[in-house]
Amino acid sequence: MLYPPRRILEDTNAPPKFGSPKDIANAIDELKSAFTGETGAQELVNTKVSTDPDDLHTHGFSENDHFPGMSPSVVIYPSTTEEVATIVRIATKYKVPITVYSGATSLEGHYRAHSTGGICVDMSTMDRIIAIHEEDSDLVCQPGARWMDINEILKEKGIPLFFPIDPAPGATIGGMLSTGCSGTNAVRYGTAKGEWFLNATVVLPSGEVIKTRRRSRKSSAGFDLTKLFIGAEGTLGIVTEVTIRLAPLLPTTVAVVQFPNVQKATEAVADVLNTGVGIQCVELVDDIFIDAINRYGMSARKYPVADSLFFKFQGPTPASLKETAKIVKAVAERHGGTGFQLARTKEDADALWADRKNAHYAGLAIMPGAKGWPTDVCVPVSKLPQLVYETKRDIAAAGLLSTIVGHVGDGNFHALILFKTDEERERTKALVSRMVKRAIALDGTCTGEHGVGIGKKEYLVEELGEGTVQLMKTIKKAIDPLGIFNPGKLYPDDSPSQGKPGEDH
Amino acid sequence: MLYPPRRILEDTNAPPKFGSPKDIANAIDELKSAFTGETGAQELVNTKVSTDPDDLHTHGFSENDHFPGMSPSVVIYPSTTEEVATIVRIATKYKVPITVYSGATSLEGHYRAHSTGGICVDMSTMDRIIAIHEEDSDLVCQPGARWMDINEILKEKGIPLFFPIDPAPGATIGGMLSTGCSGTNAVRYGTAKGEWFLNATVVLPSGEVIKTRRRSRKSSAGFDLTKLFIGAEGTLGIVTEVTIRLAPLLPTTVAVVQFPNVQKATEAVADVLNTGVGIQCVELVDDIFIDAINRYGMSARKYPVADSLFFKFQGPTPASLKETAKIVKAVAERHGGTGFQLARTKEDADALWADRKNAHYAGLAIMPGAKGWPTDVCVPVSKLPQLVYETKRDIAAAGLLSTIVGHVGDGNFHALILFKTDEERERTKALVSRMVKRAIALDGTCTGEHGVGIGKKEYLVEELGEGTVQLMKTIKKAIDPLGIFNPGKLYPDDSPSQGKPGEDH
Repeated sequence: MLYPPRRILEDTNAPPKFGSPKDIANAIDELKSAFTGETGAQELVNTKVSTDPDDLHTHGFSENDHFPGMSPSVVIYPSTTEEVATIVRIATKYKVPITVYSGATSLEGHYRAHSTGGICVDMSTMDRIIAIHEEDSDLVCQPGARWMDINEILKEKGIPLFFPIDPAPGATIGGMLSTGCSGTNAVRYGTAKGEWFLNATVVLPSGEVIKTRRRSRKSSAGFDLTKLFIGAEGTLGIVTEVTIRLAPLLPTTVAVVQFPNVQKATEAVADVLNTGVGIQCVELVDDIFIDAINRYGMSARKYPVADSLFFKFQGPTPASLKETAKIVKAVAERHGGTGFQLARTKEDADALWADRKNAHYAGLAIMPGAKGWPTDVCVPVSKLPQLVYETKRDIAAAGLLSTIVGHVGDGNFHALILFKTDEERERTKALVSRMVKRAIALDGTCTGEHGVGIGKKEYLVEELGEGTVQLMKTIKKAIDPLGIFNPGKLYPDDSPSQGKPGEDH
Repeated sequence: MLYPPRRILEDTNAPPKFGSPKDIANAIDELKSAFTGETGAQELVNTKVSTDPDDLHTHGFSENDHFPGMSPSVVIYPSTTEEVATIVRIATKYKVPITVYSGATSLEGHYRAHSTGGICVDMSTMDRIIAIHEEDSDLVCQPGARWMDINEILKEKGIPLFFPIDPAPGATIGGMLSTGCSGTNAVRYGTAKGEWFLNATVVLPSGEVIKTRRRSRKSSAGFDLTKLFIGAEGTLGIVTEVTIRLAPLLPTTVAVVQFPNVQKATEAVADVLNTGVGIQCVELVDDIFIDAINRYGMSARKYPVADSLFFKFQGPTPASLKETAKIVKAVAERHGGTGFQLARTKEDADALWADRKNAHYAGLAIMPGAKGWPTDVCVPVSKLPQLVYETKRDIAAAGLLSTIVGHVGDGNFHALILFKTDEERERTKALVSRMVKRAIALDGTCTGEHGVGIGKKEYLVEELGEGTVQLMKTIKKAIDPLGIFNPGKLYPDDSPSQGKPGEDH
């Protein structure tokens, strides 16, 4: 069969019309009978197809963000690619929106259901490691596998490799791919948009199953379709199997150093990276974050309250780590760095790094009872000091409080803005909007690693331009002509003045 | 204006119908008047719009491959993005095929004109560096800029940064992006498909100009449209400006070591890479290549005739390079490596590396008067020994001669098969076909870094599957509904049995 079938193509220019409540009810009935299996056993249906209200609520709500909850009509727990294809065919038949859920660590409302409800596909039970190719440094797994579990399993098996993309702890491979995520290791290993996802098996909106690429590390056989699904946030298909590349697990150690200000710290980082020493991570934290860590009470240390850098060094031998520490200390001191501390033992390194990693909970603890609005932006590295300076001034002027933590080697930073009342939440929202516009004005992006979801979609035209966003929509329409894959996420809403496609303006 | 305009969308399902000779003549007239400028000066037209037969021949022929020459109807030398947009609008108006030419180093017939002729856009005069952001380690340039020139200019300016993607010496940034290329540095820095191209300005088939992304190192603002044009071989738009990321220029040195066979050498490479020492390149060469280098007469050395590895080490300090050499030597010897030689001086390192880099001409020199058919395939690293072993046996059985050079850290290797007669050329072609099928059967790709062009397009369905290729075609059709952008390249031809889109099979 040619893709896409004509009956779908005919709808290409129509705005999405989703199924009615009756269509959704029919889709659920059909899903139930599809998942009964040959035995017709009701228990099997109940574990695979859920309309339990608590289950629906869990799948349409997140503690991590502040967008209104929106429950799906049904949650399905598939086990195989074929089952996902069945779900997609039924969703297409009844034009029912279809949204994927896995680690639930997203921060921008990515897995909220559509306002008409729809089907939530929970991939968390598709979490198997299918093959480990140690000799090729790659691994094949299902999308619900968690990166931390994968690294733990490799360690248990005595395989000295790891997957270096490190977003939030509970994140799954499928969610990481779909968000185009990264983390503290990006300064050394790059992001999900680099070359860590070798291929993906995807169920397309047509119900067809494709594999984007083979398993060789490189290929120049045309444009790489794997990349199309990285950052597509489930709007172009459902990923059901992934091959990821692994990196050698190397000895590391940790150091911390204080600076007079963010400008000096950022300049030091640029110089450190240019020396070519083994830097696995370099994290900027501001004075407010340090104060939060000191008060949080989980650390044996009391840090000087100043803008600081946490480094994780990596190298093949203890001698190389020592050399790196010596070089970094000298560069830092040339830029006004003080109090350089290198971890004395492995335990000490772990403790230092844990202090950095406690950012979220330490940040929340500085205002008991407050909620935190997490957000991230990214700019060319040299613009980071200006962005941080102006943002901190703006936060203070707005009468709000926020810690700032930055993946400074990439020009990426996170704020966790604290609020208690509805009025403060609105002030926070406005503050985030100004921060995003400031980042875009500095040739940056509305999100370095959290993705667009609901929260950032209004900024895409300002960041990328109308033509670029239209090209994204053209591709979306060609692949998902019914518009049922995670509707309302990523792409900016059409403005009423845009009219219908095909009309001249 | 919404993209794509309705008049183009109407053609979506029709097979491409290109302009008649009369349409081409009209397009050339219109191009000439568009490029006269306000002064109407004929000299300006002549430097920008050429129908000189020699010029047409040069732009439709390549010494690097063995596909039939095919000249364009006209060659245009634009200077700006706006001029490229003008060319695209005229090509669209008359449905004239449009192909881009720049470094002319491609090996698979990428810039051959269409059989009906058409417009060749020569970007080699759009070769300016527009901005160097040393503090951000990035650089903005036009697509005709050559990577070696860029690195030379950075060196002259005393900026200790470089662009690490290193294909053939004359390759341009635009061609490198469009081919999804790589080179010897890929084992350390990855490929063009990684994170080295931060953004691209592209003239779309609609004539609209977009910029794919901003300049920050990271962004998770949706799927990355830059990636769509990487490896698209000019079939989705014309790249007119690019921001590339730069890496710190580090001290390097070179070593060579012999092995009993390819299997042992490949195993040594895997172990070396897992130690985490600074390897910038690791190149496998076979015994026939070593014999060729010894006979070629450009080297002061006589190498032992054996399968060998050339290493380029990199590190922040002389001490780190020494440590790396010591570790690599020990690992190599554990795998049967002998005669490990580390360059004694910088000049010695350059001489050693030049011997590896002379692969093409040394390879040709072993059979005076012969032509070489260059090709590349790539497989998971552990499959490389089997692939090389079977391929060498196949070459011998076919009564042909070829050197083999491999980017072994990535599982990628090149053959340069020598032939003199037409009959030998046909035998070579059949040999290449068997090599490709062997690579695909080992979960690899028909091309690791040369791209598809004309030469490899017949293998894409076997490699990627019908559905994946159809998805590529769906995207192509949505973006270039007239099918005039570099027709006949990259996408496999529709087989007659496929019928027209919309028909059921």
